[in-house]
Amino acid sequence: MISVAVDVMGGDGGPPVCMAGVETALESILDLSVIAVGRHSEIANLVEAMPTHLANRVRVVDAPDVLAPDVTSLAAVRGGQHSSMAIAIGEHRLHKAQAVVSAGSSTGLMTLSRHLLGMAPGVERPALMTRLPTQKGFVWVLDLGANVGVDAQRLHEFATLGHASMAHRGQQPPAIGLLNIGTEKNKGPDVLREAARLLSADESLHYVGFIEADQVFQGDVDLVVCDGFAGNIMLKSAQGGVRLVLSSFEHQLETDWIGRAVGWFVRSRWEKVCETLNPANHNGARLMGIEGLVIKSHGSADASGFAKAIFLAHGEATMAGQSTVQGTTDQWMEHEQ
Amino acid sequence: MISVAVDVMGGDGGPPVCMAGVETALESILDLSVIAVGRHSEIANLVEAMPTHLANRVRVVDAPDVLAPDVTSLAAVRGGQHSSMAIAIGEHRLHKAQAVVSAGSSTGLMTLSRHLLGMAPGVERPALMTRLPTQKGFVWVLDLGANVGVDAQRLHEFATLGHASMAHRGQQPPAIGLLNIGTEKNKGPDVLREAARLLSADESLHYVGFIEADQVFQGDVDLVVCDGFAGNIMLKSAQGGVRLVLSSFEHQLETDWIGRAVGWFVRSRWEKVCETLNPANHNGARLMGIEGLVIKSHGSADASGFAKAIFLAHGEATMAGQSTVQGTTDQWMEHEQ
Repeated sequence: MISVAVDVMGGDGGPPVCMAGVETALESILDLSVIAVGRHSEIANLVEAMPTHLANRVRVVDAPDVLAPDVTSLAAVRGGQHSSMAIAIGEHRLHKAQAVVSAGSSTGLMTLSRHLLGMAPGVERPALMTRLPTQKGFVWVLDLGANVGVDAQRLHEFATLGHASMAHRGQQPPAIGLLNIGTEKNKGPDVLREAARLLSADESLHYVGFIEADQVFQGDVDLVVCDGFAGNIMLKSAQGGVRLVLSSFEHQLETDWIGRAVGWFVRSRWEKVCETLNPANHNGARLMGIEGLVIKSHGSADASGFAKAIFLAHGEATMAGQSTVQGTTDQWMEHEQ
Repeated sequence: MISVAVDVMGGDGGPPVCMAGVETALESILDLSVIAVGRHSEIANLVEAMPTHLANRVRVVDAPDVLAPDVTSLAAVRGGQHSSMAIAIGEHRLHKAQAVVSAGSSTGLMTLSRHLLGMAPGVERPALMTRLPTQKGFVWVLDLGANVGVDAQRLHEFATLGHASMAHRGQQPPAIGLLNIGTEKNKGPDVLREAARLLSADESLHYVGFIEADQVFQGDVDLVVCDGFAGNIMLKSAQGGVRLVLSSFEHQLETDWIGRAVGWFVRSRWEKVCETLNPANHNGARLMGIEGLVIKSHGSADASGFAKAIFLAHGEATMAGQSTVQGTTDQWMEHEQ
């Protein structure tokens, strides 16, 4: 049995959306149990409304406070100790849960994880890492928003974290690209040119050069390194572009009588595309460099998206239990298929 | 008759792609003539191969040099005077052409335009501006890559440039968003928080706050202001995401016998979506803040994409001729429809 501590107060949807995500995850994964952390008064009735065989696998832990979405690092450390996020991380720290999931503030999650769980040896700053679909499969990206404005050493550290994680997953040494606005050596801000020098000089890494945001989705590299600002813009912009196409085509089919008539057929093919590419199906990023397994869900995730973040936590925890090194998401990938 | 000076040596495809784009533009727009600037030896035979009625509207101006794609500002000013880009800009400066189009280096185009044409009064730095499709229509974005690492004053200047341009197009004062990785006031780097203060304090602007990259494509604002690094990542990432969906669905239809059978129907609907959203159909960004009309084409544009940049130049030049203020792209929009 894998136990995951879930901060059910975070995200735009709050407890109703998070608990619906928990229910979906419990239905799909039989060896999952959930510690639901939040205000007892807001959660208890949601657990009661679940089918008994699922509710039996939920334990509610009361947390009086909720971190504000715009909490600062300082406020999180000073006043956040009774927040649902801190108490969920505490359950993981006490080994009552093998992983933590939260859709709350990235700043809060990074700060409290660092504070309560500690950093991995030699790592200065945590980074958020996730995988995105490409024309050739998947690409891993870090950082996705934990760090804004980092120096070249940190970008090198991100590359090392990503490389190690992928090596532990049994993959070939990943081809690493540094996100920039051109592939020529003189492009972009100084910090990227300095980082490129560090990555080129590190013989343990397979660094291939700068990569532009559109090439990322062609699948030209296995791992993309960037600061959290650029990574977040890239991730959300691609999601915006994908949603725009999905909604436009849906609209084309709906406003057209032939479209409605053969819609059943088109939809079956179209849905395969949506399933693979819909941003909601790729929710969940792991906080790398932390002594623990912390998964950040997008704040705007719906129940199905939030469940994906729990799948990821479960998959990584399962693999961590099978080996002494970092977990893999292979199991999560199977859930998706 | 509108004359456009075209640097036909720039971009990944060089003269063959650029001249094919020129031919497409000449076919579509009857009151267009083109000054094709580049190495005579590489262009002359391409012009000769055109139908006579189109070739008659092309004048070749020889330019011995070509700017390297990774040219620095200094190298462009010091050694670029005989480049196809500089000579094309020179034709505009001498009023032989009402606009310039180039797919060459952004750095080179910005530097040479500034140097040869001068800046508009009170403007410090030029910025690249274009419009992108959204779920509600279009959004204008600047800067898209001309400036990397700008201060808050420059972001305020970009907002003013964009606002003025849209006002001249006869539109309502645009709702302006500042691109960031969250909408809360404490999000992102210091420079954005400072820019937000400047924009809020400027009563001539309709500033609505921070906007995330995915919201941009929902059409939540009319104008997005960002530095060239973030803007370029946003633009190219969305293009990458859109291309990923387009190619995945094409693949679904091709590998499926029913897909091929009803493909004719699906394609007709699908192509409407592609037409609107395909990045190649949105090529061309205007260099704002320059005393002149300079259009940057994406370096990787194909002939059809390069023609779109010429359409934009023609449309803007036409409107500039009809009013004493900056032109509009309304005519360009008509070309597209």
